[in-house]
Amino acid sequence: METLGHHYIVEGSGCSAEVISRVEAVEQIMVRAAEVANVQVWAISFHRFSPNGVSGVVVISESHLSVHTWPEEGYVALDIYTCGEKAKPEAAVQHALKAFGASNMHITEVTRGLDEKDKSYFHSMITWEETIPDNILNHRPRRRRRVTRRGRTRLTASSSS
Amino acid sequence: METLGHHYIVEGSGCSAEVISRVEAVEQIMVRAAEVANVQVWAISFHRFSPNGVSGVVVISESHLSVHTWPEEGYVALDIYTCGEKAKPEAAVQHALKAFGASNMHITEVTRGLDEKDKSYFHSMITWEETIPDNILNHRPRRRRRVTRRGRTRLTASSSS
Repeated sequence: METLGHHYIVEGSGCSAEVISRVEAVEQIMVRAAEVANVQVWAISFHRFSPNGVSGVVVISESHLSVHTWPEEGYVALDIYTCGEKAKPEAAVQHALKAFGASNMHITEVTRGLDEKDKSYFHSMITWEETIPDNILNHRPRRRRRVTRRGRTRLTASSSS
Repeated sequence: METLGHHYIVEGSGCSAEVISRVEAVEQIMVRAAEVANVQVWAISFHRFSPNGVSGVVVISESHLSVHTWPEEGYVALDIYTCGEKAKPEAAVQHALKAFGASNMHITEVTRGLDEKDKSYFHSMITWEETIPDNILNHRPRRRRRVTRRGRTRLTASSSS
């Protein structure tokens, strides 16, 4: 079975404290994000913790979505990790951050489950930052790519804007 | 509340197919990893998926542990993300990979929820690779550190072996 997966690790800033403090709202946004990602949901677990904040996960086949919120800081730590060619994890990231009301996000996309046909698995990474305009979907960020493998590090910068 | 968190993203190779194909075994290992990490468990959700493999998460305060397994490949995609000064995420990683029977691991440690007192959050990363000797706990890997922030990228190499 295909091991390749796309894992978005996101720090979202400037979020709506009102939205990200409510467990029902956060759960609804993350379940909708799973639908946007076009993945099959296996289990959902969301919790409010003291004195403030929400922690939750959506378990999907071979991967997951998770979020942890700090309402007083306007901050969310979001993970969206999907496997399979039909999944749309980046669309799910955009949906969730827009719904949280984020104004800025720092993202690393980790490509997981890579191998060189020797069953020794590794990951590669791309990191970028976005400020969120009126319509985030029309925003094309600057990206930096890094691939690490067995001590070798290649760093290339490319602008897609 | 403190936003700082340590998130270990791990590709584990050479794992025991017999261990990582059994949902009960994988769940037990991950719950024990949470104990080793010294964190409070809020919820547990583990599932076997067809034709093979296990997906599961342990939700803890402000963060989570997750694993996805590919028994026929001897591969696990492991995440251990903890907040708080008392947490020991690296010990949990070592416990889980040893229990899965991994012979090799590729790790990125993401330090999440960093800011410069402006409520604009970002993460930094360190990536390394380890082969697992008889006692993994005595193995000190070579590390590479990268800090990314607003388009700036610094890359430094250091040996801790």
